[in-house]
Amino acid sequence: MRVTFLGTGDAGGVPLYGCNCPACMRARAVAAFRRRPCTALVEAGDTRILIDAGLTDLTERFPPGSLSAIVVTHFHPDHVQGLFHLRWGIGARIPVYGPPDSEGCADLYKNHGLLEFHRLSKFDRITVGDLMLTPLPLIHSKVTFGYAIEDSIGQRFAYLTDTVGLPPRTEEFLKDWRPGLVALDCTQPPENDPPRNHNDLTIALAIAETLTPAKVWLTHISHDMDAWRLKNVGELSPRITVAHDSQVVSEIDINRRRGK
Amino acid sequence: MRVTFLGTGDAGGVPLYGCNCPACMRARAVAAFRRRPCTALVEAGDTRILIDAGLTDLTERFPPGSLSAIVVTHFHPDHVQGLFHLRWGIGARIPVYGPPDSEGCADLYKNHGLLEFHRLSKFDRITVGDLMLTPLPLIHSKVTFGYAIEDSIGQRFAYLTDTVGLPPRTEEFLKDWRPGLVALDCTQPPENDPPRNHNDLTIALAIAETLTPAKVWLTHISHDMDAWRLKNVGELSPRITVAHDSQVVSEIDINRRRGK
Repeated sequence: MRVTFLGTGDAGGVPLYGCNCPACMRARAVAAFRRRPCTALVEAGDTRILIDAGLTDLTERFPPGSLSAIVVTHFHPDHVQGLFHLRWGIGARIPVYGPPDSEGCADLYKNHGLLEFHRLSKFDRITVGDLMLTPLPLIHSKVTFGYAIEDSIGQRFAYLTDTVGLPPRTEEFLKDWRPGLVALDCTQPPENDPPRNHNDLTIALAIAETLTPAKVWLTHISHDMDAWRLKNVGELSPRITVAHDSQVVSEIDINRRRGK
Repeated sequence: MRVTFLGTGDAGGVPLYGCNCPACMRARAVAAFRRRPCTALVEAGDTRILIDAGLTDLTERFPPGSLSAIVVTHFHPDHVQGLFHLRWGIGARIPVYGPPDSEGCADLYKNHGLLEFHRLSKFDRITVGDLMLTPLPLIHSKVTFGYAIEDSIGQRFAYLTDTVGLPPRTEEFLKDWRPGLVALDCTQPPENDPPRNHNDLTIALAIAETLTPAKVWLTHISHDMDAWRLKNVGELSPRITVAHDSQVVSEIDINRRRGK
C-alpha cells in the first residue's frame, strides 16, 4: 500500500486568504509549505483510490480510467468540490462511495454526470480492487466516515478526518483492528476551550496514545496549527508527524506483521 | 468601462474531461483554447466587479481589497464554486450580490465567512462605486439574473448568461436600454430540438438581431460549440464574436454616444 497526501489543509488552506501570519507568509514565499484541500491517494497493485475530492484540478491530475474509485469522508465543499467539474466528463463512470448523507453537496446527486454515488453503511466493509475499506463513523458537523483500509497483504491504514474525538464504537473497532498507520485530523493547535468539529493537537495526541499505531500523520492542518508549530519546534514524538502536501508514505509499518 | 472575459466555458469546460473531439484535443495542446468557468471582470475607474465566481483560484487572482463586489448570475456550482475557498479568508468583507435564491449553493449562506450576501430584486437598480447594475430575469433551471451595467459616462454593457431565450420584460428593457456591448449565452451550436436551459447559436443570433447592440460576444461556450466552429469557420457576422478566456474589451461601442 502506498499513501500520498495530495492535500493536507483545512477548509481555508494555507496560506489563508488575507492572512499575514508567519505560517501564511512562509507558504506564500515557498510553495512547499502550501496546504491544499485535504485529500489522499491510496494505491495497492492496480487499485487507486482517492480519499476525498476537494482538489479542484482532478481532471488534470487523474486521466480517465486512472482511478478505481473515489471515497468521500463527507459532503462539505472542501472535501467534494473537485467533483463539480469532473462530473461533466464523458467515458467510463467513476464510483463515488460516501456516507449516507441525504443532501450530498449542492446538486451533485441530481446532476451526477459520470459519477456513480454509492451510500455506505457504518462498519459495512466494501472491497475495491485490492483494497478493503470499512467505514467508521466520526464526530463532525455533517455525517462523516473515516475509513479503515487494508490491502491484500494485511497492511492497515486508518484515515480519520474530519472529526473531533472518536465515537466509542469507532475507537473500539480501531483498538481491535490495530492500524499500522493513522492519518488524523489535527486542524488546530492546543486550544483552551473544547474544540468543535475538529481535533486540536491535544485531542489528536490523546487518540494517538489510545490507538498506538506505529505511525501517526497529522492532516487537515490550519494556518493556526502551522503558526503554532513555528513557535513550538521539535518533534511531537518519534511516531507523530505533521504531513505535508505531496508527501508519499510508501512503507506502512504494521503491528500485525512486524517481520516485513 | 473595461470588460475582461476571465472564463468563457460552460460547466464542463474545454477540454472536457475524457473527450477527444477536435476542440478538446486542440485545447489540451494549446492553452489559449481552453475555456474555464464563465466569469467576467468589469472595471470602471477604481471600481472592479467580478461577475460570477466559478474560477477556483480567486484567492490568487484577487488580493484582499481588490474587488469592489462580486455579482453572481445564479447559484449553480460552476458560477459560484470559487466562493467556497475565498469565504474562509480574513479581513474586509466582500459584498456578493445575486438573485433571490433561497437555497444558494451548498452551505454558502450558512457559513458565509467574509462574504456578505445581498439578494437583489429584478429590475431594481443598485450602484457599486462607479457602476450601476440592473438585475434582469433570465430563463434557466435555477433563478438567474443577467445584468445591465452602466458606467458614469453612459457606456452600457449587458451580461446575459445563463439563459435560453429572454423573458419578455427583460427583452423589452434591453430594447429600450440599448446596450453597446452584449455578452450572451451561446452554449450550444445550432440544435435540431429546442434547447433547454441554454441558448444554442440559433437563439443567440435571434437575440442579437432583436437587441441590435454594436457588438455581441458569445460566451458560456461548450466543447460542442467549439467543435462546430472548427467545421464552420468564418465570421458569424461583423458584430458577433465568440469570446475567449482572458480577452479584454477596453472600448465599448455604444449606440447612445456614437461620437466617443
